Amino acid sequence: MNREVALELVEKQLTERRYQHTLGVTEAAIELANRYGADVKKAELAAIFHDYAKFRPKDEMRGIIVSQGMTSTLLDFHSELWHAPVGAYLVEKEAGITNTEILDAIRYHTSGRVGMTLLDKVIYLADYIEPGRLFPGVDEVRETAKISLNQAVIEAMRNTIVFLMKKKQAVYPDTFHSYNDLIMKTKEKIE
Amino acid sequence: MNREVALELVEKQLTERRYQHTLGVTEAAIELANRYGADVKKAELAAIFHDYAKFRPKDEMRGIIVSQGMTSTLLDFHSELWHAPVGAYLVEKEAGITNTEILDAIRYHTSGRVGMTLLDKVIYLADYIEPGRLFPGVDEVRETAKISLNQAVIEAMRNTIVFLMKKKQAVYPDTFHSYNDLIMKTKEKIE
Repeated sequence: MNREVALELVEKQLTERRYQHTLGVTEAAIELANRYGADVKKAELAAIFHDYAKFRPKDEMRGIIVSQGMTSTLLDFHSELWHAPVGAYLVEKEAGITNTEILDAIRYHTSGRVGMTLLDKVIYLADYIEPGRLFPGVDEVRETAKISLNQAVIEAMRNTIVFLMKKKQAVYPDTFHSYNDLIMKTKEKIE
Repeated sequence: MNREVALELVEKQLTERRYQHTLGVTEAAIELANRYGADVKKAELAAIFHDYAKFRPKDEMRGIIVSQGMTSTLLDFHSELWHAPVGAYLVEKEAGITNTEILDAIRYHTSGRVGMTLLDKVIYLADYIEPGRLFPGVDEVRETAKISLNQAVIEAMRNTIVFLMKKKQAVYPDTFHSYNDLIMKTKEKIE
């Protein structure tokens, strides 16, 4: 699927603000894919479609999580997490994207997962550092992203977990396990 | 076992500095037990023995973890975590303490666990706020401990997790799951 067709499909699903965010993520994902040797075309498509399900009604998302047998712990956590796995499902069903690498990058773009692929990391990080993001600490992550993909993903996850904990919110276990997994795998390089 | 006998057994196992810490934890545990209605005698004994295995050689601790079939993921994480479950084992074996509530409070005093008991929380928190502790944020936790045991434990766990993450260290999953468990169980009171 070419960029124009993909953007047209996605634009209909999003608010103008979220569509601008998607364009920012796409730009950041292409840049990261080029820098770290990921498939640029797959990164572009995964970025364009990453928030496809963002504005689906909660009831529809809950229904898909249950009917598709997605991990039911999802429903115990913030609904903000739901659009990623539901998005992967809908992007395949409605937009006809069947490439599993692209679908996985969409599926895990909010939570991360143990054993993140290069493409997963590119999309996760692009979503965090795209030019429209103004999180505290985002500039440090942007700088790290120029040097190390793994370290930048670790910093983004850490910021996200700390942010949630400061608000005394629960943290989705996959995010925490992804953080530990990357810490363990990159340990030699840090210490 | 009375306090004097217990202290005598523990003093031999610890450095002077760690023995002073133990006295601080005992004082704090008794105060918390009185405040929150835990068994004061059990809190006193659990506190006295909580660091019993702190200075055992790593090889001995590793051997006990393996031979006693303790969760093997322990060995993938910082050895600082080992003295708690190993301590519970040795306190039973060498000091003859058989009460499971006391042994569990010792076992989980570093990591926490899902479904912490009142005594677990008292010992976990006493270890964090005893008068000798100077962590950043400890005074806030001391204040919270006067009002809510659960919230104080949540804050202590959060501080510990954030501290580890700022050092780019892995976080033992039980600690993270304990935090989430307490957040979920106390949610009504926070929001």
